[in-house]
Amino acid sequence: MKLGVCYYPEHWPRERWVQDAQAMQKIGIEYVRIGEFSWSTIEAEPEVFNWRWLDESLAVLHEHGLKVILGTPTATPPKWLVDKHPSMLAKDEQGRVRGFGSRRHYTFASLEYREECRRMVTMMAERYGQHPAIVSWQTDNEFGCHDTILSYGDADLRAFRFWLAEKYQNIDALNKAWGNVFWSMDYRSFDEVELPNLTVTEANPSHRLDFQRCCSDQVVAYNRLQVDILRQYASGRDLVHNYMGFFTAFDHHKVGEDLDVASWDTYPLGFLDQEDIYTATEKHEYLRTGHPDFGAFHHDLYRGCGKGRLWIMEQQPGPVNWAPHNPSPADGAVRLWTWEAFSHGAEMVSYFRWRQAPFAQEQMHAGLLRPNGEYAEAAAEAEQVATEVKRLASELGVDVDALVSLPSAGSVALMFDYDACWSLDIQPQSKAYRYLFWCYRMYEALRELGLSVDIISSKAEFDHYQMLVLPAQSYVSPELTSRLESYKGVLLVGPRSGSKTESYQIPENLPPGPLAKLLPLTVERVDALPEHMPLHVNGLWGEGMLKHWHEQFKTELPVLLQDSTGDPVLVGSGQRYYLGSCVDNKVLKASLSRLAEKANLAPYFLPKGIRIRQRGDLIFAFNYSSIPQIFRPTKALPLIGGAKLASCGVAVWKKEQEKNKK
Amino acid sequence: MKLGVCYYPEHWPRERWVQDAQAMQKIGIEYVRIGEFSWSTIEAEPEVFNWRWLDESLAVLHEHGLKVILGTPTATPPKWLVDKHPSMLAKDEQGRVRGFGSRRHYTFASLEYREECRRMVTMMAERYGQHPAIVSWQTDNEFGCHDTILSYGDADLRAFRFWLAEKYQNIDALNKAWGNVFWSMDYRSFDEVELPNLTVTEANPSHRLDFQRCCSDQVVAYNRLQVDILRQYASGRDLVHNYMGFFTAFDHHKVGEDLDVASWDTYPLGFLDQEDIYTATEKHEYLRTGHPDFGAFHHDLYRGCGKGRLWIMEQQPGPVNWAPHNPSPADGAVRLWTWEAFSHGAEMVSYFRWRQAPFAQEQMHAGLLRPNGEYAEAAAEAEQVATEVKRLASELGVDVDALVSLPSAGSVALMFDYDACWSLDIQPQSKAYRYLFWCYRMYEALRELGLSVDIISSKAEFDHYQMLVLPAQSYVSPELTSRLESYKGVLLVGPRSGSKTESYQIPENLPPGPLAKLLPLTVERVDALPEHMPLHVNGLWGEGMLKHWHEQFKTELPVLLQDSTGDPVLVGSGQRYYLGSCVDNKVLKASLSRLAEKANLAPYFLPKGIRIRQRGDLIFAFNYSSIPQIFRPTKALPLIGGAKLASCGVAVWKKEQEKNKK
Amino acid sequence: MKLGVCYYPEHWPRERWVQDAQAMQKIGIEYVRIGEFSWSTIEAEPEVFNWRWLDESLAVLHEHGLKVILGTPTATPPKWLVDKHPSMLAKDEQGRVRGFGSRRHYTFASLEYREECRRMVTMMAERYGQHPAIVSWQTDNEFGCHDTILSYGDADLRAFRFWLAEKYQNIDALNKAWGNVFWSMDYRSFDEVELPNLTVTEANPSHRLDFQRCCSDQVVAYNRLQVDILRQYASGRDLVHNYMGFFTAFDHHKVGEDLDVASWDTYPLGFLDQEDIYTATEKHEYLRTGHPDFGAFHHDLYRGCGKGRLWIMEQQPGPVNWAPHNPSPADGAVRLWTWEAFSHGAEMVSYFRWRQAPFAQEQMHAGLLRPNGEYAEAAAEAEQVATEVKRLASELGVDVDALVSLPSAGSVALMFDYDACWSLDIQPQSKAYRYLFWCYRMYEALRELGLSVDIISSKAEFDHYQMLVLPAQSYVSPELTSRLESYKGVLLVGPRSGSKTESYQIPENLPPGPLAKLLPLTVERVDALPEHMPLHVNGLWGEGMLKHWHEQFKTELPVLLQDSTGDPVLVGSGQRYYLGSCVDNKVLKASLSRLAEKANLAPYFLPKGIRIRQRGDLIFAFNYSSIPQIFRPTKALPLIGGAKLASCGVAVWKKEQEKNKK
Ligand SMILES: [Zn+2]
Ligand SMILES: [Zn+2]
Ligand SMILES: [Zn+2]
Repeated sequence: MKLGVCYYPEHWPRERWVQDAQAMQKIGIEYVRIGEFSWSTIEAEPEVFNWRWLDESLAVLHEHGLKVILGTPTATPPKWLVDKHPSMLAKDEQGRVRGFGSRRHYTFASLEYREECRRMVTMMAERYGQHPAIVSWQTDNEFGCHDTILSYGDADLRAFRFWLAEKYQNIDALNKAWGNVFWSMDYRSFDEVELPNLTVTEANPSHRLDFQRCCSDQVVAYNRLQVDILRQYASGRDLVHNYMGFFTAFDHHKVGEDLDVASWDTYPLGFLDQEDIYTATEKHEYLRTGHPDFGAFHHDLYRGCGKGRLWIMEQQPGPVNWAPHNPSPADGAVRLWTWEAFSHGAEMVSYFRWRQAPFAQEQMHAGLLRPNGEYAEAAAEAEQVATEVKRLASELGVDVDALVSLPSAGSVALMFDYDACWSLDIQPQSKAYRYLFWCYRMYEALRELGLSVDIISSKAEFDHYQMLVLPAQSYVSPELTSRLESYKGVLLVGPRSGSKTESYQIPENLPPGPLAKLLPLTVERVDALPEHMPLHVNGLWGEGMLKHWHEQFKTELPVLLQDSTGDPVLVGSGQRYYLGSCVDNKVLKASLSRLAEKANLAPYFLPKGIRIRQRGDLIFAFNYSSIPQIFRPTKALPLIGGAKLASCGVAVWKKEQEKNKK
Repeated sequence: MKLGVCYYPEHWPRERWVQDAQAMQKIGIEYVRIGEFSWSTIEAEPEVFNWRWLDESLAVLHEHGLKVILGTPTATPPKWLVDKHPSMLAKDEQGRVRGFGSRRHYTFASLEYREECRRMVTMMAERYGQHPAIVSWQTDNEFGCHDTILSYGDADLRAFRFWLAEKYQNIDALNKAWGNVFWSMDYRSFDEVELPNLTVTEANPSHRLDFQRCCSDQVVAYNRLQVDILRQYASGRDLVHNYMGFFTAFDHHKVGEDLDVASWDTYPLGFLDQEDIYTATEKHEYLRTGHPDFGAFHHDLYRGCGKGRLWIMEQQPGPVNWAPHNPSPADGAVRLWTWEAFSHGAEMVSYFRWRQAPFAQEQMHAGLLRPNGEYAEAAAEAEQVATEVKRLASELGVDVDALVSLPSAGSVALMFDYDACWSLDIQPQSKAYRYLFWCYRMYEALRELGLSVDIISSKAEFDHYQMLVLPAQSYVSPELTSRLESYKGVLLVGPRSGSKTESYQIPENLPPGPLAKLLPLTVERVDALPEHMPLHVNGLWGEGMLKHWHEQFKTELPVLLQDSTGDPVLVGSGQRYYLGSCVDNKVLKASLSRLAEKANLAPYFLPKGIRIRQRGDLIFAFNYSSIPQIFRPTKALPLIGGAKLASCGVAVWKKEQEKNKK
Repeated sequence: MKLGVCYYPEHWPRERWVQDAQAMQKIGIEYVRIGEFSWSTIEAEPEVFNWRWLDESLAVLHEHGLKVILGTPTATPPKWLVDKHPSMLAKDEQGRVRGFGSRRHYTFASLEYREECRRMVTMMAERYGQHPAIVSWQTDNEFGCHDTILSYGDADLRAFRFWLAEKYQNIDALNKAWGNVFWSMDYRSFDEVELPNLTVTEANPSHRLDFQRCCSDQVVAYNRLQVDILRQYASGRDLVHNYMGFFTAFDHHKVGEDLDVASWDTYPLGFLDQEDIYTATEKHEYLRTGHPDFGAFHHDLYRGCGKGRLWIMEQQPGPVNWAPHNPSPADGAVRLWTWEAFSHGAEMVSYFRWRQAPFAQEQMHAGLLRPNGEYAEAAAEAEQVATEVKRLASELGVDVDALVSLPSAGSVALMFDYDACWSLDIQPQSKAYRYLFWCYRMYEALRELGLSVDIISSKAEFDHYQMLVLPAQSYVSPELTSRLESYKGVLLVGPRSGSKTESYQIPENLPPGPLAKLLPLTVERVDALPEHMPLHVNGLWGEGMLKHWHEQFKTELPVLLQDSTGDPVLVGSGQRYYLGSCVDNKVLKASLSRLAEKANLAPYFLPKGIRIRQRGDLIFAFNYSSIPQIFRPTKALPLIGGAKLASCGVAVWKKEQEKNKK
C-alpha cells in the first residue's frame, strides 16, 4: 500500500526539482510517474536528442529514494513527425482527419507510426532500461482516450482487410458468417470490403463487430511492440499501462496479458458528471464523492485484467477540468478513494498530478500542489493516508511492505466480456439498454449486499468462486460452455446470454444457445422497452420492476419471479438460475441475496451509501453518503475508525478469530 | 381480402422451400413477395447469371398455388456494380458520399445506374414476364427509405440544372420567380445554379422547393423506366411499389399514376416510437397497438395514390428491430391491424416477413416464423383472420373473392398535397408547425367522429364528396380554384391555404390568395407560436385552444370562433368555412361535427380508442385502447364480434335495410 | 430623436418609388438606409455597371427630403465573383466549404475578396461620396451574422500564421506563451502551426484564444479597408456599421474605433425565443415584448462602442422569420422599443424594413408595409412616436433636433470586454457558465434597481463614474491595473477577474492576479457547479443562492456574504469589493443596492417588468409586464404618460428643480 504521483519535470525549472522531490518524500510518496508526454522535449528536431533533462530528473528522484515509472512518450508525437507521416493520423467516423494540436493524434493501425514508436522506445529502453531509479515502464498513455480506437482511414482499411483475410481465409466464409446474402452485400474478394462507416443505413452488425475486434487487435499489437522492446532492455521492471473508466472500446484482458500490472486512472467526480450511466438523482447526490461503486467496479475489473496486480496510476486529487461541470471533492473524499483502492487490492495509488500546470489544456486540473507550488487540499489527505497505513501495519504487527500481500480476491465472480459488450451495444433493441450499465447495476447490487466481487474475463478460471454471475454473455464458446457445465457453485445467467454466435447470428436453437443444456429454456421473443414503460415483476423471490429488456421465454424450470402476465422472469433451482429481464435494484438485491445464501455467503443489507470490502481478515468500510451512518461488522474489532462513519468516513476492522467454530 | 407474406428463398436451403410453401398454405396465405434484394444472388459477377434458384423457387410456390409478387432487385446493387460506377452513390446534405454496406446506395439521378437497372429489369422481365406464378411486379423497394430522396452529388446537380432549364427556359424567369434580387443571388445562366446545401445560412426557399420537386421527379422517372420495361414484357400483371409510413419526400401521387396498385409497409409500433408526431402520452398509451389512426391514415392516403387499389405489402407481425425501442405487440394486435386494413379497402395484407432471419441487420425483426422455423405468435392471428374472412363471406352469402369488390370510398375528402408539404415545411415559422402533423390531427378528429375519409390529391375529383377539407393547401392552382368554386358540398379551408404562389412567393392579394374569391378575407399577419403558448379560442361553435399557427385576418364573414382578443379564428356560413389557426382536438372535433351535420353526415362521438370504418353496408369497429369498450352502431347486426370490444377487439356489423325510409 | 427605415428600391418597380417616399414622409421618417445587398443589381456582369436605378432612387428620396444611409453591398457578392475566386469562401469548423446561395459567403481573411471590395467600394464612393442625399455610409452588413467570424480555410491559415509571426516574432516565444511543452505541442516554425479545429481533443486554449483574436482582427482590417476609401471620397458623412444582438465573436470596440457611429439591429422577440440566455419562464412571460433588458443592454453596450453615438439601424416592426418561433409583438411594443432606444441615447431608430418582400428568404419578415403595400400594424406606432417626439420637444421648449444632444451617459459603469468573453468561454469549467450571461444578469440587476448604466470597454475612462463593476475581467493589463488603483468610486470586482494572463495562463500569484494588490485575497480552488446544485449564501448583506461558479478563496477582508460552509463569497470594505461566485438575482440586487448607496446613488426597487432610464433631467419609464404597473419617480412631473403604465406603456418625466437643496 504505497502512494505515488504523476510528475512533469519538463514543465518546471531545473531549480525546483529538488524541492519537489523533498516535498514528495515529506508527504509519504514513494512512486513517481514521469515522461509520458515528453517526446518533443526529448527529440525537438528529427534525430536530435536531448536526454539531459531526463538523466538529471531521474537522478534527482533517485537521490531522494523515489521509485520511477517511466512512460513511453508515444501518445504525443511531435508536429514534425506528424508532418512527415500524414497518413498516421486517424479519421473519424465522418471521414474527417483528426489533426495535430492536442494528443493521441495517430491510428494504431499505422505501420509508419509503429516504426517511429519502435525507434523511440528502443532509444529510451537502451538508455534507461536498467536505470536504478526505474521500477516500471508505462506503455504510451490511456489507449483510446478521446475515442481513438475506431479509425476510418486508409491504414485502417488496409489492416481490416488483412485481418479479415487471416480470420476467414476465403471470402465465401466471410459472406456466410456475415449473412451477406441478406441485402446483396456479398463480396467477391477481401479487397471489396469497406469500413462500416458512412453506409446509407446501419452496416451489417457482423461487419461492425469484426471491425471493432480488428481495431482492438491493433491496440494489442501496438502495445506488444513496445512490450517486446522493453522486455529486451528493461528486464526486472513491471510493465504497465493506465486504463480509463467506463471505457470498453478495446479488449483490456488481451492487452493485459502482455503486461505485468494493470493500472487505471480514477476520476470519480468527472465520471459521475459525464456518464449517462448515472441518473440525475445520483449525479446530484454524489456530486462531491462520486458514485459509491465507481471506483470499486473498476478496481475489481482491472485487477482481473492485471492477473491480480492493480495500481491506480492517476487518482483525482481535486476538481478536474474536462467534465461538463467540475466541482470540488468533499473533504475527506481523496482519503476515502485512496483507502478504498487499497481495500480492493491496489498495491499503489498515484495522484494526478503533482503540481497544477498554469498553462495549456489542463490548467484547471487540480494537483497535490497549486500552480503557485503551495500544497493544495489533497496533499494533507494523502499524507494522512500514508500515516494511517503505517498505523495499520503496526496494529497488524507486520511490516508496511507486507500489506501488499494481503489477499485481495472476492468470493463472487461477475463475468465482464469486451466482445459481449461490443456485440450487445451494436444492436441494443431498446435505446435504454447498454451492456456496461447492466453489468454495473448487477455489480452495485452485489456490493450493496456487502459481497466482495471479482470481475473476471470469459477466459478466467471460476471454479473456486462460490457464486458466478454472467450478466449478459452474448457469445458462449464451446470451451466456456463446458466449464460452466462442470461448475459447482451457484450460477446466475442474465438476459441476452447465449443470444449470439461468434459471428453475430442468432443460434439455431434460439437463445440461450449452448446454455440451454444447463438451463433448459428457449427465448422466443424479446420485448425491448423504453424507459417510460417498466413492467411489474413478482413471485416467490420478491417484487419490483423490470425494464429495457424483457425476454419472453418458455421453460419447465421453477418460476421464482414472473411478469404481470404470468410469464417467467427468473427461473431455476439448485445451483443454476436464469434471469430473462433487466430488473431494478430492488429485485436484483432480493434475488442476489437469495443466491448468495444458497452459495453460503452472508449478505448484508448495507445502509445507504455504505460499502464494504474484505481482504482476508480485514473488513474495510466506507461512507459515500452525505450524512453519518452506522456500520458494525459482526465479530470484528476496529483498527481504524469505528462503527460510526461520518460522510467520507473510512473504517478498518479485523475479524475475531472464530475459536469455538469447527 | 387476401393474405400474403414476404419471402426470401435465397436465405434458406433449397430443402426447406416445399415445407415453407405448405406452411403458408396451411395458414391461409395466398400471395408471396420475393426477389427484391436478390441482385447479388442473381448476378454474383458481372454478366454471370444464376436464375436457377429463382426458377425453382417460383416453381415450388406455383405448385402450391401461391401467387407471386416479384420485386426488381434494384434497391441493392452489388458491390462490383458500385465499384464500376462510383458516381452512382448519393451524397448527403453534408457532402459525404453514402457508401456501400447496407442498401439503397444509389441516387435516383444517376444515369449510369439507371442504365444498369434497365439492363437488369429487362433481363428479369424477359425471363419471367409471363411466368404463370407471377401476378404482380414490385418496382425496387421503399423509395426514399433511409432519407435517400435528396442527394447532393454531381449527378444530382446535373439533373437539377437540366430540370430548371426545362422549367424556366431562360434564367431571368428563374431569377424573377425565386426573387433572387433579394440578396444578390441572381444567376447569369443555369450552369451557375448550385444545390441548396451547405449555404452560409438558409438557401432561398424557392430554390429549395424546386430542388425538392426535381428530386421527386427523378424518382418518378426512375420508377417509370422500370414500369415501361415491365409493361412491355409482363402485361396483365399488376405493377406496384411499396411506400412507407409518414414519408413525404417525393410525390406519391405522381409515382402512383404509373402503377396499378399502391401498397405500403405498415409498422404501427416502430412508427409510434420513432415519430415526433406523437406525444409522450400517446407513445406510452399505444405502445403495443400503435396509434389508432396510424394505419387508417395511410390506408386512406395510399388508396388515393393507387387510384382506389390498395395492398399492404409489409405488415408488422411482432417486434421489429429498427425503432429506438422495439416492444412486442399486444395479443390480437396483428389481427386488429389486418382487419383494419381490409376495412379501409386493402385487397391484400402481406406480412413481413415469413421467417425471421438469424443473420445481418434485421435479425431481431420478427416474422411469422421464428429463426428456428417454428410458428411465432403472429402466425395464429393471421390464420384466425383467414378463417374469419371466409366466415364473413359466408355470412354475406358471397364468394370470398367477391369481398374485394365491396365499396371502399369514404364520404369526406381530405386533401393531402406533397408539394404543399414541402412548401410549408421549408418555412414553418414556428418550429412546432409541421404540415403532416396538422393533416394527421385533422384526419384523427374526423375519424374520432366516426366518419369515413378519403385522402385525395389536389388533382383528384371531389364533387361527389359531401364534405371537403383542405388542411393547408399552400398553392392553389387556377384549375383547383375553379373546381372549388363549383363545389357544392361543405368546404373547410384550413390555415396557410392559398398562402404561396407556384414559385413560393406570397400572393399579391395576400393569403388566402385565389381562395379570397370563395372566402372573402385577408390574412394580414401570422402569429407563429411556440408549444408553450397556446391561446384560448371560444365562440358559437365551442371553446378550446389554438396553437403553433395563428393567422390574424380581417373579414366580413360570420365569426364562429374567435381568439381571446376577439379576432376571428373560424369564419364562414352556408357551405364554405375558413379556419385561420391550428386548433386542438377539442375544437377540431366540435367544428368538424358541426360541418359534418351541415353535410348531412351523422358523426359519432366515439369512446376513447374506438375507431370505425364503413364499406357499403358493413361497419367495422376496432378497439385500440387497453381496456374493453362498448360500441354499438345504430340499426345494425353483428357479423363478427359485438358491441363489447376487448382491447384489440374487432367487430363487423351489417346495417339493417332501412325499409321504412323514403 | 429621428426615425428611419430600411428600403430596397431594387425590389420594387420604379413606379412605386415616389409613393413610397411620400408615405415615409407622412409617417415621420427622415432616414432611409439603402443598397447593402445590391451588388448583383449594380454589377450583374463583371465590370458591367448599372448605376441608373441607384441614381434615380437617390434622386427620389432626396426630392422628398429623406436622408440616405448608403450601404456598401459587400455582404452579398454575386455568383460570378464567387466563381472567379472560389478561395474567398469560408470553411466551417468541420472543414466544409460554405457555399453561395444566401449571403455572407466570404472569409474576412481572403485577400482576393478584399481586393474586390476595394474595387466596388471605390467605384461607389467616387460616384456618390458627395451626393447631397447621403448623410452616412454603412460598411457591409452585420459582420459575423450566421457565424461567419471564425473560418477554417487556406486564407485563414495563412492569415493566422502571419498574425502569430507578427505577435511573437520567434516561435519559442509562442511555445512558451502557449505552454506547448504540455503535450509535446511545440512548433519549430510558424509554418507548422495549424488552425485549432478538428484536433483529436480540445486544442490548447491559448491557441484557440489567439485564433479568435486573429479572426477578430481580420474583421477590423476588412472594415478599415472600406473606411479608408470612404474617408477619402465621402468626407463629412457618418460612417457606421450595424452590429447584432448577443454577438461577441469579434471586438466591437476595435471596429468601432474606425467608425463615427455605432448602430445595431434589434429584434427583441427573435432573440428572446432563440437565445439560451433566457429561462423558459422568461421566454413565456415576455413572448410579445422581448426581455426587459434586451434592448437596453445593447443600447448601452453599443453606445460605448460608438464613443457615445448610437443608432438603431434595424428595429423589429412585427413578426420576424428567422427565430424558432415568430409571434406577433404586443400592441404598443414597437412604440415601447423605439422610445426606449431614445432613452438610452439613440439618435435615430430605423425600422427593418419598409415593405415586406413577398419573395426569397425573408418573405415572412414583417415591415412597416405589408407585401401588398398597405400599412402594417407598426406604421401607426412609428407615426405615434414621431408625433410624441415633437410634443416632447415642445414641452421642453426646444427644437426637435436639439433633443439629440440631451445627455445620455449613466452613473454606473459595467466593463464588458470581448477578449475576456472569448477567454472565459473557451474553458468555462461549468457548462452552465457563460461570460455574456453573467454580464447580462449583473446588468439586469443594476437596471432593476433603476440605475442608469454605461457599458464600457477595458480601455475606456471610468474615473468619472460613481460606481464601477467588473463582472469577470479575466485578463487585467498593467495599464488597467494602475487605473483601477487610482479609481475613487465604488468598485465591485466579480468572479474570474484577474484569473488569466494575456496568453491564457494562470497568474503566478493565482487569481485575481494583479488585482490582489487592490483586493488582497487568493483564489485557491474553483468549485464549478452544475445547474442542479446551487448553494446557499448568507451574511450581513442578505441571503440567496450562488450557482455555476464558486471560488474558494482566502482573505483577511471583511466577509459580507459567505457560503454554507462559512467560506467567503462577497468581501471588501470602503470602496473596494470582491465577489467570488455567480449569485442569483436576489443576492445581486441586495449587494448592488448596498454598493449603489455607498456610491451615493439612490437605487429603486422597481415593480416587476418596469424599467427606467435617465437622460439629464428626464426620466423615462417602460412597462414590459403584461399587466398595468405603477411607477412614480420622486419629485418629477409627467410630460408623456403618467404613473400608471399599461402593458407596453411609456412615460417621460421631468425632474423638478431641487430649489431648496444646496
Ligand atoms: Zn489522464
Ligand atoms: Zn421495409
Ligand atoms: Zn439583419
